[in-house]
Amino acid sequence: MSEYIYGKNAVKAALEHSRSIRCLYVEEKNKEFIELALIRRLPYKIVTKQTLDKMITGLHQGVVCEVEDYPYYDLDTILKAARSEYPIVVALDGMEDPHNLGAILRIADATGVDGILLPKNRSVGLSGTVAKVSTGAIEYVKVCEVTNLVSTIKTLKSKGFWVVALELTPEAVSYQSIKYDMPVVLVVGSEGKGISRLVLEHCDFQVKLPMVGHVNSLNASVSCGIMLYEIIKYRKE
Amino acid sequence: MSEYIYGKNAVKAALEHSRSIRCLYVEEKNKEFIELALIRRLPYKIVTKQTLDKMITGLHQGVVCEVEDYPYYDLDTILKAARSEYPIVVALDGMEDPHNLGAILRIADATGVDGILLPKNRSVGLSGTVAKVSTGAIEYVKVCEVTNLVSTIKTLKSKGFWVVALELTPEAVSYQSIKYDMPVVLVVGSEGKGISRLVLEHCDFQVKLPMVGHVNSLNASVSCGIMLYEIIKYRKE
Repeated sequence: MSEYIYGKNAVKAALEHSRSIRCLYVEEKNKEFIELALIRRLPYKIVTKQTLDKMITGLHQGVVCEVEDYPYYDLDTILKAARSEYPIVVALDGMEDPHNLGAILRIADATGVDGILLPKNRSVGLSGTVAKVSTGAIEYVKVCEVTNLVSTIKTLKSKGFWVVALELTPEAVSYQSIKYDMPVVLVVGSEGKGISRLVLEHCDFQVKLPMVGHVNSLNASVSCGIMLYEIIKYRKE
Repeated sequence: MSEYIYGKNAVKAALEHSRSIRCLYVEEKNKEFIELALIRRLPYKIVTKQTLDKMITGLHQGVVCEVEDYPYYDLDTILKAARSEYPIVVALDGMEDPHNLGAILRIADATGVDGILLPKNRSVGLSGTVAKVSTGAIEYVKVCEVTNLVSTIKTLKSKGFWVVALELTPEAVSYQSIKYDMPVVLVVGSEGKGISRLVLEHCDFQVKLPMVGHVNSLNASVSCGIMLYEIIKYRKE
């Protein structure tokens, strides 16, 4: 199976990360991409805008790259590659919006998250849209598809992780009241439905962001970003 | 002129906020909305899903509301209504994505932002999509359309505001190094192009978020959320 990556940032990241490139389709005006393909000895075809329009419904900016399927990593690989004594794993419980997933990959790359857990059946998967929105972060952040999020969370707890759910429940405490110098699994729920009951039961902490207005939630990627920046900030202080 | 608001959260907020409702179009199954219309004596029509599908291309969830155009506020009204001695105004320089604007309205409502500045010609305006994504926040956050962002920024500076640009420039300092107990204008740039040079020249501070990975920016609404939560957190400490 292969996937199409499109848009300049996303394609550039794919080329730089030496993903298995099947073919680069590029408009003649995008000389830098043609040069890159020549230098890297990658298969490429110069095509018209019309050809690319037929391949991709989104904004391709004159460059589309056919690559092998996005790789998923297993949990052990993610944990072995962890860069700190306190790794951070983000678990997305039922996220359906590829734009949110793409934005979260960007945040995860920027904050040094070690891996993302994506439940197999109830979530969006890695795709061209996710790659585009991630502006290349998809190439650097390790994503693990899990069959059963609860059992993966149990495994992580047995390895010393503490599980923090971002959810507006009556039990939730302020997101600033947790000491984040520990291995953390941050659980973020889907827009609308939030975190499922069973997953929530296995979390050690429930935290919320203060909200002084009328809405009772933020966009999932926005809350995820605020949480992750709080965690890395806490650790630096 | 009128606008269509759709989706349960957005329509509920419009009804609760007593926006000038021209007509509520609702599927028979959405009894709560019909009741609401009866109690508030609002004009409504029971219609089929097919009728709504023709009116709206997005996910309407069986309820669409025709309202007067979204109101814009002038700067004076925003400043007079400010809730704190240190008001916060967010200036969006060239934001084109309605999803980002909707997400930022949600954050603005949650963090008590006093107003949003939206340049007239170079930005997305308030629309049904923005309302939907904002999950109702559009009814509560005051938006000011400005003809010339630089001159509005000058006016705000003359009234004691300090202007903080969120932009990855060589001069930018960490977002945590500013003392935010002052009236703040937070300037957020467009995805891709960032903040325009002329606007940047009129900012007092340039700040950046730390990024340890490969991408060099976050989604505009995500960075805006991290900044605003940092500002309100700083003021509470």
